Amino acid sequence: MAHTLILLRHGQSEWNAKNLFTGWVDVALTEAGRAEAVRGGEQLKDAGLLPDVVHTSLQRRAINTAALALDAADRHWIPVKRSWRLNERHYGALQGKDKKQTLAEFGEEQFMTWRRSFDTPPPPLSDDSEFSQAGDPRYSVSNGGPGEAAPRTECLKDVIERFLPYWDAEIVPDLKAGKTVLVAAHGNSLRALVKHLDQISDDDIAGLNIPTGMPLVYRLDADLRPTVAGGEYLDPEAAAAAAAAVANQGR
Amino acid sequence: MAHTLILLRHGQSEWNAKNLFTGWVDVALTEAGRAEAVRGGEQLKDAGLLPDVVHTSLQRRAINTAALALDAADRHWIPVKRSWRLNERHYGALQGKDKKQTLAEFGEEQFMTWRRSFDTPPPPLSDDSEFSQAGDPRYSVSNGGPGEAAPRTECLKDVIERFLPYWDAEIVPDLKAGKTVLVAAHGNSLRALVKHLDQISDDDIAGLNIPTGMPLVYRLDADLRPTVAGGEYLDPEAAAAAAAAVANQGR
Repeated sequence: MAHTLILLRHGQSEWNAKNLFTGWVDVALTEAGRAEAVRGGEQLKDAGLLPDVVHTSLQRRAINTAALALDAADRHWIPVKRSWRLNERHYGALQGKDKKQTLAEFGEEQFMTWRRSFDTPPPPLSDDSEFSQAGDPRYSVSNGGPGEAAPRTECLKDVIERFLPYWDAEIVPDLKAGKTVLVAAHGNSLRALVKHLDQISDDDIAGLNIPTGMPLVYRLDADLRPTVAGGEYLDPEAAAAAAAAVANQGR
Repeated sequence: MAHTLILLRHGQSEWNAKNLFTGWVDVALTEAGRAEAVRGGEQLKDAGLLPDVVHTSLQRRAINTAALALDAADRHWIPVKRSWRLNERHYGALQGKDKKQTLAEFGEEQFMTWRRSFDTPPPPLSDDSEFSQAGDPRYSVSNGGPGEAAPRTECLKDVIERFLPYWDAEIVPDLKAGKTVLVAAHGNSLRALVKHLDQISDDDIAGLNIPTGMPLVYRLDADLRPTVAGGEYLDPEAAAAAAAAVANQGR
């Protein structure tokens, strides 16, 4: 039996537009980001790719992207599951900082290490910071979250470690039940998923960029291996151009 | 232990604005309706009434009202449950008809019977009608819906009969678990709930109108009986004025 998995990175957020490191800070979509989400949903509808269930992070830019895309695809009524394990990478002390300024202040090597190193997280964010999520009720143990164990910074390796248990426990069962699954999430939680699916090495994942608002479709075999490596964008040319733009952020 | 239940009727829809019978037709919110939803969410936030879980119908006007209100209340991340059992009353052959025209064509008595009679449904809607939901996948058995048994018309009594099993199976357990529950639904599915909570007679429920976009808060005792009959609006004066306007629709 073939399985269909659709990945959707949230549309442009207010801090994408300002070129700030966002991480777990819960910023809203811009008007452009909302339009991207609607267009992504229209692409799904036009392709006849109709999700049966959606998984989102606990962050409004992914939640609202999912809502707008599904409304445009006439699938607003499907079941919704959310988890902090789909959140963006926690960017530690970089949260709230301008990417260009960070590049100028710390230099290319340190900047790229923080952005793309597999296992080097930025310095942790203080719980006192205005950009901290410490104490946010959505991450409390009573709400199914990590509680005090919530990250104060993460590298991609950390994201993979907290994402994979959710993949195994919640997404795989939906796929094995024959459902078309939409995952509406973030640049780095989706990179974690793509790395797992395509078995990309720790080094090579640094070069992978996922554009915003463009459905990426994986057809998976019975062992949940992609039948086409890297999946397929519904609009491949636009996706390639957008991925190149992401790679150049901060320049 | 006290329980908190918040009812929210969706904001103005495109067909509310056109004065058409809507029922199960899945129309969108107007800009005014979206603003109502946001204001409802702001009222919740200002009152410190923070839902832990939301239940919606399968209709976009309730789904989007919930999403907008929860986003405004900073509770967009809470778990979501949806069911056709929270849908608006199916208005049968009246769906898509102008309320004023229907009043003029059939007369006051027939009009009010269809609108407010407890146990007289309008004529059924043909499956061939452009306003029919027959065959809509969201109501299929495989999606947890009624399938072929889906209504083609309903009176309020019918709505109560299909709503109460969901109340007992899904909403009551959330309340008993100590959760603050938001139900984002429709004029008649919420009337069914209020009738049940306040033990309103079949005759008296005809006079009850619930305004759009205004959170109605019930504090329930251990037996899930309201501690204040009829609940409490966060903005009682605006709610009373709006309810009077609903009662005069079609005039």
